[in-house]
Amino acid sequence: MIKAAIYRALAPEARQAPGLSWTNRVICVLILLSALTAILETERTLVAQAPALFPFLETLFVALFLIEYLARLYAAGMEPRYRGLKGRLRYLFSFWALVDLAAILPYFLGFVAHDNAFILRLFRLVRMLRLARLGRFSQAWHALSVALSSRAHELWLSAGVAGLLLLFSSCCLYVVEAAAQPEAFGSVPRALWWSIATLTTVGYGDVTPVTALGKVFAGLTAVAGIGLIAMPTGILAAAFSEALHRRPPSS
Amino acid sequence: MIKAAIYRALAPEARQAPGLSWTNRVICVLILLSALTAILETERTLVAQAPALFPFLETLFVALFLIEYLARLYAAGMEPRYRGLKGRLRYLFSFWALVDLAAILPYFLGFVAHDNAFILRLFRLVRMLRLARLGRFSQAWHALSVALSSRAHELWLSAGVAGLLLLFSSCCLYVVEAAAQPEAFGSVPRALWWSIATLTTVGYGDVTPVTALGKVFAGLTAVAGIGLIAMPTGILAAAFSEALHRRPPSS
Amino acid sequence: MIKAAIYRALAPEARQAPGLSWTNRVICVLILLSALTAILETERTLVAQAPALFPFLETLFVALFLIEYLARLYAAGMEPRYRGLKGRLRYLFSFWALVDLAAILPYFLGFVAHDNAFILRLFRLVRMLRLARLGRFSQAWHALSVALSSRAHELWLSAGVAGLLLLFSSCCLYVVEAAAQPEAFGSVPRALWWSIATLTTVGYGDVTPVTALGKVFAGLTAVAGIGLIAMPTGILAAAFSEALHRRPPSS
Amino acid sequence: MIKAAIYRALAPEARQAPGLSWTNRVICVLILLSALTAILETERTLVAQAPALFPFLETLFVALFLIEYLARLYAAGMEPRYRGLKGRLRYLFSFWALVDLAAILPYFLGFVAHDNAFILRLFRLVRMLRLARLGRFSQAWHALSVALSSRAHELWLSAGVAGLLLLFSSCCLYVVEAAAQPEAFGSVPRALWWSIATLTTVGYGDVTPVTALGKVFAGLTAVAGIGLIAMPTGILAAAFSEALHRRPPSS
Repeated sequence: MIKAAIYRALAPEARQAPGLSWTNRVICVLILLSALTAILETERTLVAQAPALFPFLETLFVALFLIEYLARLYAAGMEPRYRGLKGRLRYLFSFWALVDLAAILPYFLGFVAHDNAFILRLFRLVRMLRLARLGRFSQAWHALSVALSSRAHELWLSAGVAGLLLLFSSCCLYVVEAAAQPEAFGSVPRALWWSIATLTTVGYGDVTPVTALGKVFAGLTAVAGIGLIAMPTGILAAAFSEALHRRPPSS
Repeated sequence: MIKAAIYRALAPEARQAPGLSWTNRVICVLILLSALTAILETERTLVAQAPALFPFLETLFVALFLIEYLARLYAAGMEPRYRGLKGRLRYLFSFWALVDLAAILPYFLGFVAHDNAFILRLFRLVRMLRLARLGRFSQAWHALSVALSSRAHELWLSAGVAGLLLLFSSCCLYVVEAAAQPEAFGSVPRALWWSIATLTTVGYGDVTPVTALGKVFAGLTAVAGIGLIAMPTGILAAAFSEALHRRPPSS
Repeated sequence: MIKAAIYRALAPEARQAPGLSWTNRVICVLILLSALTAILETERTLVAQAPALFPFLETLFVALFLIEYLARLYAAGMEPRYRGLKGRLRYLFSFWALVDLAAILPYFLGFVAHDNAFILRLFRLVRMLRLARLGRFSQAWHALSVALSSRAHELWLSAGVAGLLLLFSSCCLYVVEAAAQPEAFGSVPRALWWSIATLTTVGYGDVTPVTALGKVFAGLTAVAGIGLIAMPTGILAAAFSEALHRRPPSS
Repeated sequence: MIKAAIYRALAPEARQAPGLSWTNRVICVLILLSALTAILETERTLVAQAPALFPFLETLFVALFLIEYLARLYAAGMEPRYRGLKGRLRYLFSFWALVDLAAILPYFLGFVAHDNAFILRLFRLVRMLRLARLGRFSQAWHALSVALSSRAHELWLSAGVAGLLLLFSSCCLYVVEAAAQPEAFGSVPRALWWSIATLTTVGYGDVTPVTALGKVFAGLTAVAGIGLIAMPTGILAAAFSEALHRRPPSS
């Protein structure tokens, strides 16, 4: 029976063996390729070299995803709750079916004329959301999120400490540097840009304090930034270590 | 009885159920909003768009905090030690009552004329101290500070190592780079600015060594900076791990 | 018997005592020196000071490595599987013998004329691959790779999270900054350069967002970067901690 | 007996109670102050404001350290091995006595005329070595160095991995960027400066790749830099965690 074969090929939950079926592996690769195409298409110099290639690839991917969508809709009937016309309608509004639809629909909306550059850029990236479809095939995120959420309280607390540090250091820099650099430190929100770059130890260097007192506060902020990295790292290290001790060490 | 109802609504310690009462949640939100207002008010371009909004909001917040202050003063009588006129006076000088007062008072002092820009900036930020009032509602800081203070000795030690490294690397750079860049490395305190930006791996790049020998020492400093991050992180990871093992793992 | 003495001196696996034989220590130093020579030879100002030195050293190292190669070929007969002419041929195509050959061969190919600067630079660095020969003498890499591969699943997962964060932040910056800075944020691949510098907290500062919205997204990216460092660090800390608990603590 | 009183006041090992005696605390403060004076003296603008202050303070500190030195020499006789003239001579050549002497001697050598700016700078910083005298009063370094040395093998291994990564990334950047930026990437040693700033995630930004291929390799290097921070941090976290488990958790 064809429907059962399609169902086994497409639904991850119908598979007995571990890992993904070959059909789903191909779909994963297609999703990644279509995201890569969407990324590369934003680069004008690449599009100029092969103007016809990107629209062609996009049409190809949408055609394949449309076939997959229809096949999934057809095979959904194997599950009791999606049987019959009413069941199919229920499937159409299930979470993953909507995600699948969201991966196809923008293509057809793309023919509507628009000439606002910002909207155009935003529109192109809607196609990147196809990557969300990969979530269907992975149970691994679950394990990670469990480890993170077990320490959620401590992580929020260190986020609170980080927020206060951020605010405090930008207030200090605002007070001592505003006169010397009104453009960069003329208000607390402006000083926040410097403060976040320093506390996270990114340190772009596009804005740096120039007064002696400003440098003293900046130095203290940079040192506090190390603590800011050390705290969540320590919490996560303890969380992962605890997760290891709960399950048998051989796994 | 109204006094008892106000007391139950305002005092976190009078509450049986976990979490904060709705009144206190509203107060927390008000504190955060008033801090946000104080932050945004420092930005001239925002004030220019709505010149009347910020003084109005400030007056509103102060009026609400004044009402809260008086309500707390009235309800404090529910606690035996704050009963009577003498008890109320004792409450007025209790730690959190003074903090509450410090959140209101600057508003009335604000009418005193001043035209020094530095004082004005400092003055605005006094309002940020209202955030300290949040401390009344949280017991969580306590848990974090216990974990930190259990490793205080090791953390101080690594701070000492960091201080010596900082001093040593700025001395090295001062010796080899002072001739090439007198403005940035002409003295040890000047070289400290570069040194702290490098050891904390912030790396602004506003000051970098240009001589070959200076680059060698800078490279060694940058590598030492990794150790400087690794040490407190390792200590904290061990401290949090230990804290987890002491209490039952299910919590 | 000379062959047995050479074998004991050269083959690490024939040694009873821990550590390396003196012959192999000398070879290790020679490998490091020849790599150092190859590095320094790329610097024109050094070559100009002593034009004859570097070709001489190179010839010397190749001569010594050739002698070592022939000695190893001769002594290989001590192992049963490399005995006889057929065994020697099998030795010639063994992994480490090919690596040894690769360390000598480029010297003789170097006489072929070429004037493409890129090829010339690539060619010089082939000599750096001699460092791979050090792998013959170390079993330590094995221990490290075991600790890493025991947590491979978690590390791949956090690499996946990192990849999605990278993509997401460069898409955000592309959308909001492309109009203001087409050179740096005009496409997603261009924005990736900024994104990777920020998420890894390197923060060169050659490209930074200038719009207010861009700075907000950049700040969020920088904060996410801390999580990105904390996650693999926590996983590795747990992995090393587990490795310690498995073996007796005295080791 | 005066000698015994001086001995109890000065020798940390003669003290029964934990912590340092008041005399030694004063000496520690003096050492820190004399180092601070030496640091501030390098800044010309400060010296210009009070030209007589710094030589006066230096003379004061040396006088006090000289008194301390002589008092220690006198009190050393309380220990059997330093008794008598021969014992005193032995004390003069003991490690800490030489360190104490090294803190005093440079002052008297300072009167020798010299006008080389480099030597002058080096000379000033010899006074910073007085900080080494603090080592006499602290047993804490010992505990830290034990924790570090217990994982010395793993730390060296990750240092080896770091070294190879450093070399590899600078070779890659040299090959692809040398043509575009001969000044910054024209040789492997030059590329090393960029490479170390990137792998340690310092990221000054004074030198960044400009070619597309260079940026790809730079991105990979930055990601490898995260691993480079994660590895020693993980190792140290495991080492500190192990150190905690060995001793009773209450300490």
